[in-house]
Amino acid sequence: MKRTLGVCYYPEHWPREVWQDDAKRMASMGLTWVRIGEFAWGQLEKEEGKYDFSWLDDAIGILGREGLKIVLGTPTATPPRWMINKYPDMTAVDRNGQPRKFGSRRHYCFSHQGYREECRKIVAKIAERYGSNPHVSAWQTDNEYGCHDTTISYSGYARQEFRIWLKTRYGSIERLNEAWGNHFWSMAYSCFSEVDLPNLTVTEANPAHELAFRRFSSDQVVSFNAAQTEIIRRYSSAPITHNFMGRITDFDHFQVGKDLDFACWDSYPLGFLEDRISASETYKADFSNQGDCDFQAFHHDLYRSVGNGRWWVMEQQPGPVNWAPYNPSPLPGMVKLWSWEAFAHGAEVVSYFRWRQLPFAQEQLHSGLLRPDGEETEAVAEIASVIAELEMADQVQPAQAEVAIIFDYDSDYSWVTQPHGKGLNYFQLIFETYQTLRSLGLSIDFLPSDTEHMSTYKVVFVPGLVHMGDDLKQALFKSNAICVVGPRSAARIGDMEIPRPLPPDLIDFDCVVSKLESLRPNAPIALESGGYVTRYREWLETNEPILEKTVDGVPVLVGKDQIMYLAAMLDDETRKRLFKSILDRTDVDTIELPQGVRVRDTATERFWFNYNWTKQHIAGFTLDAASYKRELR
Amino acid sequence: MKRTLGVCYYPEHWPREVWQDDAKRMASMGLTWVRIGEFAWGQLEKEEGKYDFSWLDDAIGILGREGLKIVLGTPTATPPRWMINKYPDMTAVDRNGQPRKFGSRRHYCFSHQGYREECRKIVAKIAERYGSNPHVSAWQTDNEYGCHDTTISYSGYARQEFRIWLKTRYGSIERLNEAWGNHFWSMAYSCFSEVDLPNLTVTEANPAHELAFRRFSSDQVVSFNAAQTEIIRRYSSAPITHNFMGRITDFDHFQVGKDLDFACWDSYPLGFLEDRISASETYKADFSNQGDCDFQAFHHDLYRSVGNGRWWVMEQQPGPVNWAPYNPSPLPGMVKLWSWEAFAHGAEVVSYFRWRQLPFAQEQLHSGLLRPDGEETEAVAEIASVIAELEMADQVQPAQAEVAIIFDYDSDYSWVTQPHGKGLNYFQLIFETYQTLRSLGLSIDFLPSDTEHMSTYKVVFVPGLVHMGDDLKQALFKSNAICVVGPRSAARIGDMEIPRPLPPDLIDFDCVVSKLESLRPNAPIALESGGYVTRYREWLETNEPILEKTVDGVPVLVGKDQIMYLAAMLDDETRKRLFKSILDRTDVDTIELPQGVRVRDTATERFWFNYNWTKQHIAGFTLDAASYKRELR
Amino acid sequence: MKRTLGVCYYPEHWPREVWQDDAKRMASMGLTWVRIGEFAWGQLEKEEGKYDFSWLDDAIGILGREGLKIVLGTPTATPPRWMINKYPDMTAVDRNGQPRKFGSRRHYCFSHQGYREECRKIVAKIAERYGSNPHVSAWQTDNEYGCHDTTISYSGYARQEFRIWLKTRYGSIERLNEAWGNHFWSMAYSCFSEVDLPNLTVTEANPAHELAFRRFSSDQVVSFNAAQTEIIRRYSSAPITHNFMGRITDFDHFQVGKDLDFACWDSYPLGFLEDRISASETYKADFSNQGDCDFQAFHHDLYRSVGNGRWWVMEQQPGPVNWAPYNPSPLPGMVKLWSWEAFAHGAEVVSYFRWRQLPFAQEQLHSGLLRPDGEETEAVAEIASVIAELEMADQVQPAQAEVAIIFDYDSDYSWVTQPHGKGLNYFQLIFETYQTLRSLGLSIDFLPSDTEHMSTYKVVFVPGLVHMGDDLKQALFKSNAICVVGPRSAARIGDMEIPRPLPPDLIDFDCVVSKLESLRPNAPIALESGGYVTRYREWLETNEPILEKTVDGVPVLVGKDQIMYLAAMLDDETRKRLFKSILDRTDVDTIELPQGVRVRDTATERFWFNYNWTKQHIAGFTLDAASYKRELR
Repeated sequence: MKRTLGVCYYPEHWPREVWQDDAKRMASMGLTWVRIGEFAWGQLEKEEGKYDFSWLDDAIGILGREGLKIVLGTPTATPPRWMINKYPDMTAVDRNGQPRKFGSRRHYCFSHQGYREECRKIVAKIAERYGSNPHVSAWQTDNEYGCHDTTISYSGYARQEFRIWLKTRYGSIERLNEAWGNHFWSMAYSCFSEVDLPNLTVTEANPAHELAFRRFSSDQVVSFNAAQTEIIRRYSSAPITHNFMGRITDFDHFQVGKDLDFACWDSYPLGFLEDRISASETYKADFSNQGDCDFQAFHHDLYRSVGNGRWWVMEQQPGPVNWAPYNPSPLPGMVKLWSWEAFAHGAEVVSYFRWRQLPFAQEQLHSGLLRPDGEETEAVAEIASVIAELEMADQVQPAQAEVAIIFDYDSDYSWVTQPHGKGLNYFQLIFETYQTLRSLGLSIDFLPSDTEHMSTYKVVFVPGLVHMGDDLKQALFKSNAICVVGPRSAARIGDMEIPRPLPPDLIDFDCVVSKLESLRPNAPIALESGGYVTRYREWLETNEPILEKTVDGVPVLVGKDQIMYLAAMLDDETRKRLFKSILDRTDVDTIELPQGVRVRDTATERFWFNYNWTKQHIAGFTLDAASYKRELR
Repeated sequence: MKRTLGVCYYPEHWPREVWQDDAKRMASMGLTWVRIGEFAWGQLEKEEGKYDFSWLDDAIGILGREGLKIVLGTPTATPPRWMINKYPDMTAVDRNGQPRKFGSRRHYCFSHQGYREECRKIVAKIAERYGSNPHVSAWQTDNEYGCHDTTISYSGYARQEFRIWLKTRYGSIERLNEAWGNHFWSMAYSCFSEVDLPNLTVTEANPAHELAFRRFSSDQVVSFNAAQTEIIRRYSSAPITHNFMGRITDFDHFQVGKDLDFACWDSYPLGFLEDRISASETYKADFSNQGDCDFQAFHHDLYRSVGNGRWWVMEQQPGPVNWAPYNPSPLPGMVKLWSWEAFAHGAEVVSYFRWRQLPFAQEQLHSGLLRPDGEETEAVAEIASVIAELEMADQVQPAQAEVAIIFDYDSDYSWVTQPHGKGLNYFQLIFETYQTLRSLGLSIDFLPSDTEHMSTYKVVFVPGLVHMGDDLKQALFKSNAICVVGPRSAARIGDMEIPRPLPPDLIDFDCVVSKLESLRPNAPIALESGGYVTRYREWLETNEPILEKTVDGVPVLVGKDQIMYLAAMLDDETRKRLFKSILDRTDVDTIELPQGVRVRDTATERFWFNYNWTKQHIAGFTLDAASYKRELR
Repeated sequence: MKRTLGVCYYPEHWPREVWQDDAKRMASMGLTWVRIGEFAWGQLEKEEGKYDFSWLDDAIGILGREGLKIVLGTPTATPPRWMINKYPDMTAVDRNGQPRKFGSRRHYCFSHQGYREECRKIVAKIAERYGSNPHVSAWQTDNEYGCHDTTISYSGYARQEFRIWLKTRYGSIERLNEAWGNHFWSMAYSCFSEVDLPNLTVTEANPAHELAFRRFSSDQVVSFNAAQTEIIRRYSSAPITHNFMGRITDFDHFQVGKDLDFACWDSYPLGFLEDRISASETYKADFSNQGDCDFQAFHHDLYRSVGNGRWWVMEQQPGPVNWAPYNPSPLPGMVKLWSWEAFAHGAEVVSYFRWRQLPFAQEQLHSGLLRPDGEETEAVAEIASVIAELEMADQVQPAQAEVAIIFDYDSDYSWVTQPHGKGLNYFQLIFETYQTLRSLGLSIDFLPSDTEHMSTYKVVFVPGLVHMGDDLKQALFKSNAICVVGPRSAARIGDMEIPRPLPPDLIDFDCVVSKLESLRPNAPIALESGGYVTRYREWLETNEPILEKTVDGVPVLVGKDQIMYLAAMLDDETRKRLFKSILDRTDVDTIELPQGVRVRDTATERFWFNYNWTKQHIAGFTLDAASYKRELR
């Protein structure tokens, strides 16, 4: 595969007169791909059943004739206003029972069957018309599932579908009661139609109830997406993707990914720094105009796994955005750096959002490659530079990493359901693991929990994987990797039930979590060898070798050659020290990288990235501020 | 009375096969009491009118035959799901008008007459069946009234009952209008059915309206409980209690207490530290695994008063809980310390919650004496040690303290209604008073505002008692105690009306509050003799001797031999200095105790408690960390 | 005009027996004006259509015969309870869709036509009866429009009226769709009845939608008020005012002002400091008992402009209030200082709120000139001193300032709609501009955006004026003043559309905002000449002289002799330095004033105000703490 660039374009926003010129400029800029159509339902079906594809025919023709390859989006994230007349209750309902209104986007409930039918109709219409269009070279379903907190809906439709889902899952209400432990607090139901959604309860709902609802909600997204891919494939052999959004973990991307040909995601490094990352105010000021040096890489690696090796950045921030708490401008060089970073992690395409800044509506302060008056922004020169460099390095170079982390969406639901300590969450735990390994100079692969590819890694980390199946336990033991399990892995079975024997009950590993506690952030516990346990720890009954313990004698890391159990969360320095000691048992090379500097290896290249405002001296050379360096290995 | 121990047990959660073994283990552990049944409505009446008591008969028999004494709970905190079918609107409604849903517990509105009827039916069934059972040695009504913010309901039923309550109280709407001052802002009503609940008003509701609603809401709890005790007494002569919850002040526990034979409360020192106590982050870190050294004692003393001298701890935390923001594990020794502290304050029974940790449902991370797999937790050894020591000191030793504080739930409603400054609240004021006196080595009694036992004290503190009746004023003057009144005592009459003559209008005490102000926390006012007024103060017109004043010449403490008025809130050190100066006028001995160390005297014993992580040297001896010492006096 | 004093009085709150004595005391105190009636609807029309004016006749007679001049308020801020029976849905609905309930005040939706009819009826009744009463010397409409967040209502009535308003504004739905850019996200409507209110959307609503709703909501207030003034004028020639509230910017006071004869506002310096001002905790502690030294002056100057030169303080805080987070007592001297400050800014009347503290209802802790028991508070002596001093200085002395700021309510709606950075708001930007100029010893005039009086100023500041019309651009260029435009001025046209050519597109001024960013508060950008850009900046393409730029080379202040463009927000010191450098190009004298000290010039006088706790040495003399000094110029 070649590394190419693209852009997101909305012909429906601009007079037809400029389309031709826009297409020419895109092509002459060196862009290969253009994504269109994903919010245009209102232009395609202005009234129910009255379709107008002529403008889209023209747009595709104009773009295609300039040599651009089209990614055509299904417009189901923006149902037009007439549909609200037809289905006034098709919108999602928030946690407080309030219906969410028309007037922006994603105003639908995944469980509304009438809306699903409308989606099937419009997708079929579009797929039929463009399925064999030579310019349509890929498809995108919907837009950013889950964005604006839209996975979960507490509507009557969701309740109805949830009951059906429960019936399918449990068969009888007695089995549900048994599985959930509903003898507690007299919570037993006598039929499925008595089960409500788990919002607005007097105190917390049964965690089994909450977890089931989270799993159901994820399944609704998966089936919603599958309905579209099934239809598209009837008419088209072009690959299908969906543009996932950063740090959305409330549905199972791996499940959705199984119905896609490749994955993609929307990368807004500066918006994400302010909106989705826990870090000190000082850190955020230091990286305010560059973003976090691991957050993009994390998602690149995650979506490479979701896409089974094939992935794009569908929307790449090219300048200030409009939606974060603060919206600074990227440091000169960052657009180029972000683009190369994606390629270094295996992206086939980096596509910028958007072509031209719109002077209207919600995103009027979201910059594009062009200003509203059509002049080029600074991003264009950086993109030109990327294109020039790509000529010498245009091939996607897949390579497996030596170290992997298992990422499991279901575990996120379990943590949300039962954080046990304020601020504890699964994403943060995984992200800390990732950051620490990356600060040691490593390239990382993410694996799903049903992975069959574990054996070829040197080390596999399995933190926080709450419901760990027997297959995975077997796979861990069969692999050649050192498997670092915990904390809070294999902690539950079924629907948030504590297993007996007590966790983690790993095969041939003598270790029981006998007690656990969450800690105030300002009450860490010292380790004998230095550093601190923070926020969470478990007590172990174990006959395995104790590799680290606290000053009060509680084991923190235990294990033998191939399986280790980590029983606590740690401060950054200590986590680094422990991880390095584990890696040192293998032949994996580590490098101590300064803050903001990261490395990424492909099969034939080593990339160095410097996210800092200042130049960095590393490994005998100097990296300029906001720059990258590519070496052949 | 003997000092004994107990445990909370849920036979309905476990297979019948283990009951016998559980009972044997409890007995052999030395436990005397076992509380059961209080959430088991769903097991007793699975469908409406279809009762199944056989399992409970068996459980009581098995436990009883092992010599255990049963506390049998009425299950009215957890109405089963079928009742929601019968009464879909029986749940409470929150401040925003949102009904609270089934799926946890306490899902009822105290004003729903249909639910009240159901409660009377099930309580009568249970009382009839077990009223003369030889093993049922005490009764508990419902569970933790007010927990999860359930005293107040803004339902239509509450509105209807409130109107009836108002009619009874005022007789005519003209008298209500007059009493509330409804000529202000054209708020007058023409009939009782025009009076709504005081939520969702455009700006604050009339404080008289709010206070009346708070008083009504308290009365609803009192009558709900009385209905149960009345029924139980028809069938049983065993004593009745209710397990109150820490820092719940929105209904009148003294009123409920009048219908009980003894009081009890549920003591979770570590959960409370995080959830219910205002203290610095550093303080909370220092006592994260021990709890606050006054919070338990405060409630012990309070419920001794509520129970008219007789009280228990019904639920004692034995390990980490699941519901606080952070859930650490108790420091070794604390379970023993907490148990002895309760006995030192006069408890007859300390009962641990719960027997065995449940692997299911909401409390799956709430530890018990046993782990989910049946192994013993560390608490068991500490309890064994308590039992061993009890053999030498097994008698409850009632003793009246020398110093008392009047605690008045009605004043809490007044403060909630009109805090006047951000963060000011009645509980905090009383708790500060208590903490300061305890840090001077004192044992304290709480008295209700209708007390008749004031005369035998040396000093009585009456802070923040907003509505002070003439009887109490008379009693203060008739007592031999030094009475320290204020701030904000006797400040209102009737329904939040400022009296004229202006407050406090104490008999034969020449003092008028002419003005008052609330202060920013960071704008304290210095006293002439050192220290600061903080957060609140009053100006006095007085001819009484001025004992303390601010540098701007405003009296802070005035009074003569027997009555003093305290016109301000103070910082901790200054409060201590002033209280000590008052105590020094009497023959009450004081000791300056270090942080975390407290003393409690019974008739024949002196107990020393050290809540600190570190050993403490005091009064010529050393107290180990997390330990207590018992001396004979 | 003479400078006189007044008081707010509620005869309906007190027994008729005390009215005569109250009137005598007011008159003998030297008060000239007394405002009455504005909450008395319940007393005037106790049942629908049953009017009782006898008590008001008497009250007016008694007060009038003592020589007091009456301001008579229309009582439409407090519709009586019977009206809720007639119109149960007449109340406003909050952002979450919840109706706001009866039980305090301002419980009406401006769009409810039934309520509007009731208002017309009661106003006509009152105006007819008292229109020629010799004692009624002025009228006040309603009370504090917008207070308690009551401008905006999301009711069904508001929705209906909004649709009519849109139809009038746009004519056809196609033009609305075009103007709002509704081709974005498929948001187009097919008829006006499809347009909903912009709350509860899934993510932010179209800013054009939000802005239109804000403009509509403002127009509703304007027409509501105009309906009253139109009726009053039929019966009375006495001047009409409305008492505006501090820092309420959600309707257009200038538009309301056009229907008034003079403006007035309600000045609560200590409440405002806690409730409405962004400042450090330390600053708030330092000025806790005095208020902010610019906040009152700001509103004095603003309402002088709203009233077209004529204005009063209708409610002046005389002691602690009841409604702020903290409610401290004014420092001795402040009541006098505040009174004189109002006169210095051109007030005709300062009227204290209220005569006697009420022992009932919501404002029972709001102090008055008298205590609830009728004794005088400290304020009375300060007022007596003001009256004594007024004898030598009793004339209102209008004088135009040399420097002006344009204040534009419509811009506030634009900023609320699109702050772009957390915490950015229009009021704060204008207030900072004002504070800085005042700290340089200047007196300031505010001008509306349709001003025709610009030419006579030396410098005019136009920050943040988002929608700047061509007329204003022309006026700026025609004026003799140095006009300092920006940041974010002339940034939008129509309904939040970015204009092309890009902003600011000032006549004959070569400058384009090519990019903009919002900054984290802790990520400022240094200027070459020292100091910092903070929170927001723009990039300029310009051939104008660059007067200031950042260290990264981005222009901050550009311009030539008469027009300058300021492209950023600045820290306080830097703003002061830049403003001083601009003022130094003119003959305007500046003085560097210490914190808390301010100057105000009238035509013949110079006033010095010291808000500090400590005396200040300035310009060769000493100002005592909390004092003012008046000099003849």
